[in-house]
Amino acid sequence: MRTWLTERFGIEVPVVGAPMAGVGAGRLAAAVSAAGALGMIGVPSAATAEWIAGQAAIAGGDGRPYGIGLMAWTLDGDPARLDAVLDARPSLVSVSFGPYAGHVERLRRAGITVVTQAGTTDEARAAERAGVDAVVARGAEAGGHGRDDVATLPLLQSVLDEVRIPVLAAGGVATARGLAAVLAAGAAGAWVGTAFMGCVETTLPDAATGRVLAAGETDTAYGRVFDVVQRLAWPPEYGGRALRNAFFDRWAGREEELASDEEARAELEAARRSGDYDTAYVYAGQAVGMVRRRRTAAEVVAGFAEAERLLRRFAT
Amino acid sequence: MRTWLTERFGIEVPVVGAPMAGVGAGRLAAAVSAAGALGMIGVPSAATAEWIAGQAAIAGGDGRPYGIGLMAWTLDGDPARLDAVLDARPSLVSVSFGPYAGHVERLRRAGITVVTQAGTTDEARAAERAGVDAVVARGAEAGGHGRDDVATLPLLQSVLDEVRIPVLAAGGVATARGLAAVLAAGAAGAWVGTAFMGCVETTLPDAATGRVLAAGETDTAYGRVFDVVQRLAWPPEYGGRALRNAFFDRWAGREEELASDEEARAELEAARRSGDYDTAYVYAGQAVGMVRRRRTAAEVVAGFAEAERLLRRFAT
Ligand SMILES: Cc1cc2nc3c(=O)[nH]c(=O)nc-3n(C[C@H](O)[C@H](O)[C@H](O)COP(=O)(O)O)c2cc1C
Ligand SMILES: Cc1cc2nc3c(=O)[nH]c(=O)nc-3n(C[C@H](O)[C@H](O)[C@H](O)COP(=O)(O)O)c2cc1C
Repeated sequence: MRTWLTERFGIEVPVVGAPMAGVGAGRLAAAVSAAGALGMIGVPSAATAEWIAGQAAIAGGDGRPYGIGLMAWTLDGDPARLDAVLDARPSLVSVSFGPYAGHVERLRRAGITVVTQAGTTDEARAAERAGVDAVVARGAEAGGHGRDDVATLPLLQSVLDEVRIPVLAAGGVATARGLAAVLAAGAAGAWVGTAFMGCVETTLPDAATGRVLAAGETDTAYGRVFDVVQRLAWPPEYGGRALRNAFFDRWAGREEELASDEEARAELEAARRSGDYDTAYVYAGQAVGMVRRRRTAAEVVAGFAEAERLLRRFAT
Repeated sequence: MRTWLTERFGIEVPVVGAPMAGVGAGRLAAAVSAAGALGMIGVPSAATAEWIAGQAAIAGGDGRPYGIGLMAWTLDGDPARLDAVLDARPSLVSVSFGPYAGHVERLRRAGITVVTQAGTTDEARAAERAGVDAVVARGAEAGGHGRDDVATLPLLQSVLDEVRIPVLAAGGVATARGLAAVLAAGAAGAWVGTAFMGCVETTLPDAATGRVLAAGETDTAYGRVFDVVQRLAWPPEYGGRALRNAFFDRWAGREEELASDEEARAELEAARRSGDYDTAYVYAGQAVGMVRRRRTAAEVVAGFAEAERLLRRFAT
């Protein structure tokens, strides 16, 4: 399974542990990288430069390559965070969702491989023009934020035919079968979030992990409810996919009202603190149905490595 | 690319030309089968037993295997159509969407291979229990009717791990890359609708084909608008994915009102007759963005055959 991804970073398994703000920090990134894939730190919108430096030290402590994932819309007017990323010298940085193009050149000049996530073929073409090293084709079934427009399988076929840079596939890849699929299509690897959500190395509270392990493939919902209630400045085309819960159901379709409801806002904050996931969010993709047991990141990566066997069947 | 599908039917390319009511009848089925894949006839809800017999004669005229696709909810209280299917002796019958289980045994006893489309892992498990020969894992990006719940890539991984019968993958497979992907995952083949919609052998009016060729990957929408306006008895969990148009946008979210609006109903019927596709529907999946030129079914099948080359890269 040698691809641009494995060659570029000297890793064995063509999988990136996708950045997951609030779920995966330095510890998960280090564990994924130690297992032979490439781990990433997900930087939350409220993270400080100090937080980034601290988590980067954990992720890169053993000298292995790792990455840092930024949300482009959080970078405006706060150069300290990008400076902290540059100082940490990760091997890979993703800047996604919002005005990322202006940061590509500076990161690349520092010797960092730069990628962005694209939810349509047009976004992938724009990414190539912006000069990224590779583009992540992120389908609508993916967990966390992004577009709800095109599913991974059709998006990946289309993007691979339209851009010349390497393509990673994100959204719904959770087992060796999924990794084999995207490699066979021509991707350089998979960008995997949800499948790592059951891992012992996440920062998720146990109650949230419990929801993840119990959820089925039809238990997610896509929308802006949790961004609106928190007054987060997400560009509206990037909603989030999370476990559907009572709070989501109550407010979906009433986002305008929610935007100025102070009681709902306080309710959500209280629920986050107390770990009440009927109200608080747990971002996750449709692949959550395949996450059934608490495992180590090393076990998840070893599972993906089985893709090699699946692909070798076609050797004869 | 030898799989259960190619062995069972003696075909060369592990692709089924999915049944598409109103788009693919005997001529398209014959052309797909003649090209080395397996063509199917899509039986519209209003089709008569005579129509079925006539199209089956066209599809099977050259003695090659072909299939017939039925919508289960249309079969109740109309045994003549199922009798016509049995008389035609196709190699494959699909019965999907509604109470199909009661028909499986009779079809299989006639020597026909029987499959059904499943939109969740639970539906796939139920299909295995119902005794079908294979199950089609149909993702939410697919064209035409079905569930909007789980995308093809995660659904396929999950279903392959949960059932022991052969699995075909439907939804968003439009090029050799997509076929290679689903084969690498472990599917016995792909069940492809939208990618054949630009073919010269369809029954689509030219104006509708023009819409198909012009549409992009983000130009489809899922819902029940076109079923409600026509008073069709589709089970509500099976909405349809069609090209988004002005009529859909006007009525989406107002289905209850639409259900008794006689003017809207007349408007749709008139638009269907006149070929006004701002009002009339053209069912299609997200893969429509990859359908750009009018081609023959033979050209589309030859394109899929390139999957073999993609898979052989992993031989070393
Ligand atoms: C809990 C969670 C948090 C996420 N946070 C981020 C983030 O901070 N930055 C980012 O670029 N993407 C984020 N994503 C998206 C992932 O990078 C990736 O696109 C997605 O997980 C891939 O789909 P999958 O979840 O089906 O594997 C997040 C995803 C999840 C599930
Ligand atoms: C125009 C159109 C008509 C369809 N009609 C039927 C049908 O009559 N019976 C059926 O079982 N499925 C029908 N389908 C669904 C297909 O069998 C199949 O699930 C789907 O086309 C696969 O996804 P794809 O369109 O992305 O290839 C239809 C699909 C389309 C696009």
